[in-house]
Amino acid sequence: MTGIPLSDIAAGLSFDVPFVPPEALERARGRAFRARLGANESGFGPAPRVIETIRRAADEVWMYGDPEHHDLRAALARHHRVRPENVVVGEGIDGLFSVAVRIFLDPGLAVATSLGAYPTFNYCVAAAGGRLVTTPYVDDREDPEQLLALAVRERARILFFANPDNPMGSWWDAGAVDQLIRSVPDGMVLFLDEAYAEFAPPGTIPTIDAENSRVLRFRTFSKAHGLAGARVGYAIGAAAVIQVFDRIRMHFGVSRISQEAALVALEEQAYVQEIVARVARGRERLALIARSSGLVALPSATNFVALDTGRDGAYARRLRDELLARDVFVRMPGVAPLDRCLRVTVGPDPDLDLLAQVLPEAVAAAA
Amino acid sequence: MTGIPLSDIAAGLSFDVPFVPPEALERARGRAFRARLGANESGFGPAPRVIETIRRAADEVWMYGDPEHHDLRAALARHHRVRPENVVVGEGIDGLFSVAVRIFLDPGLAVATSLGAYPTFNYCVAAAGGRLVTTPYVDDREDPEQLLALAVRERARILFFANPDNPMGSWWDAGAVDQLIRSVPDGMVLFLDEAYAEFAPPGTIPTIDAENSRVLRFRTFSKAHGLAGARVGYAIGAAAVIQVFDRIRMHFGVSRISQEAALVALEEQAYVQEIVARVARGRERLALIARSSGLVALPSATNFVALDTGRDGAYARRLRDELLARDVFVRMPGVAPLDRCLRVTVGPDPDLDLLAQVLPEAVAAAA
Repeated sequence: MTGIPLSDIAAGLSFDVPFVPPEALERARGRAFRARLGANESGFGPAPRVIETIRRAADEVWMYGDPEHHDLRAALARHHRVRPENVVVGEGIDGLFSVAVRIFLDPGLAVATSLGAYPTFNYCVAAAGGRLVTTPYVDDREDPEQLLALAVRERARILFFANPDNPMGSWWDAGAVDQLIRSVPDGMVLFLDEAYAEFAPPGTIPTIDAENSRVLRFRTFSKAHGLAGARVGYAIGAAAVIQVFDRIRMHFGVSRISQEAALVALEEQAYVQEIVARVARGRERLALIARSSGLVALPSATNFVALDTGRDGAYARRLRDELLARDVFVRMPGVAPLDRCLRVTVGPDPDLDLLAQVLPEAVAAAA
Repeated sequence: MTGIPLSDIAAGLSFDVPFVPPEALERARGRAFRARLGANESGFGPAPRVIETIRRAADEVWMYGDPEHHDLRAALARHHRVRPENVVVGEGIDGLFSVAVRIFLDPGLAVATSLGAYPTFNYCVAAAGGRLVTTPYVDDREDPEQLLALAVRERARILFFANPDNPMGSWWDAGAVDQLIRSVPDGMVLFLDEAYAEFAPPGTIPTIDAENSRVLRFRTFSKAHGLAGARVGYAIGAAAVIQVFDRIRMHFGVSRISQEAALVALEEQAYVQEIVARVARGRERLALIARSSGLVALPSATNFVALDTGRDGAYARRLRDELLARDVFVRMPGVAPLDRCLRVTVGPDPDLDLLAQVLPEAVAAAA
């Protein structure tokens, strides 16, 4: 990199990209996937009225979107019974992580997370010059007590915790999460990633105490609302924290059409509930499909299921590759011991039909 | 902010937002604008085939977009006769500025720009802890020689230069810009903002020397292509610089629908040329409208015109407010002596009709 005057942080970053997209795999293969079950998108799509809204809003694409996200924030505030001042909207949870990390983190400060948790969050920490410290999953769940102990020991500025969790689909009940929230000490902020909140069983998501400045809760329209491609997420937090986003975030970053789509998606709560129910049935079917091939579906509170191969990462990687070769896009956790599993999104029935058809062949081929 | 453990940079930032959106003004007024001529959007909209593309792509919104922007980068590379490795796509030029500044800037380093140039760039510099140093416009143009001298004197890491310029609409010919590019010393990078390149007369935009690592050129689909609401911009630079974006940028930040829209917009070059011609005619009409009210339209190589009131910022502000009160959204430069002007976007004829109708009243009221 001789001659290019990089910042100290940029010069120290690796080229690791958090996720290789299915499109890149398709280009390398020269063939499209027949089932897209790797990115925890919602193959059920958004509510029909959301699609109609996008089509209608196409004419408005020449105008910048509202950088204050006024209508969407107001609707989110009503939905969550908080004030609009407690809500910030961004370019997906990833975009919000990127900003939120820079709000709190000075270079060199520690950030505590679980080994194998969300890679894009880690990527944001690295890009802010943070120092990642990790503690392992225990029984395929994040371990709030060990995470907190680690964070305190390392004087971490940020503690990351996802409930329900990705990539394992596991979860804690609201009481355990509330206990974690209450335990956050001075000088630390809990980033509570609730991307999959809508799919979790009752009693999983703690009541929102919006003015607690020690926790930021991250939500998205990418999962239950079926709008992954629209890039709309939001964070809920104390007004004094939320307003700091306005000093760093890209005010015009969210597409105008996406804002309108998200607003309508939020109104379509009956549809969201229908999707949640379909996903629950899909998880059961996925468990049966897995069992027929000798895999164990771990319990999940999300729109995906971790399928335990009962073997190691090398085997799971082979099995994943055999599924990819059979046109089924799936992913897997990145580190041991989680990487003994495949991570399969609950898709519509035709996608699961294909999985049911090819999984036995893939298992045979990977053996 | 007691008790909130902000990063040093975040704690030092002000709450100044670069632009108050028309939507916020409309909410405050309780009434919509009848002509939206303040944000240099294209009221002509994108090509009809772009709108059709958005409508058709609505069904795909459940899928994340391609984070490698493969097809769009390939098309941009063909269009500009560079390699795809020389192109990075982001959430508008603003999103790219935010990343690019962090690629080069360590906190405390200087960034040179003109006093009154693009506020959102300055905002990105502040959010990266940079130190902004400025030199005045001369005869309503940025002054490349003084800018360079300032940047050298302050050992600036980044030199910002827009051609054509915003907010004045002025420009330099390609020879002068090439001279500036050649003069960039070791350890400095020129950010060349070419958001309005399509509108500039022949001989304004220097030939692209893609592998020159001392310059990054920023372009957008927000202006001539009529896609401000879609949030798609791109930068062209040396492959060794462009790949560093992949370490910091949000890989999934650009909406899937927006990518497809931009791809088609790029194909519609005949439409872009038609818009450029309509904007040129609109600039002439705007000059006549201005002259009838005693204002002077400054020469412009963009889709907007700076209207010189011949008086001071206080007067121009009153005149702007009188236009806003008459439902015409316009903006004005932020600092003297530029702020003696109003900045008016060239819109479709009905918008200019309204301006022609209300400008004399506004001038009378502001007197």
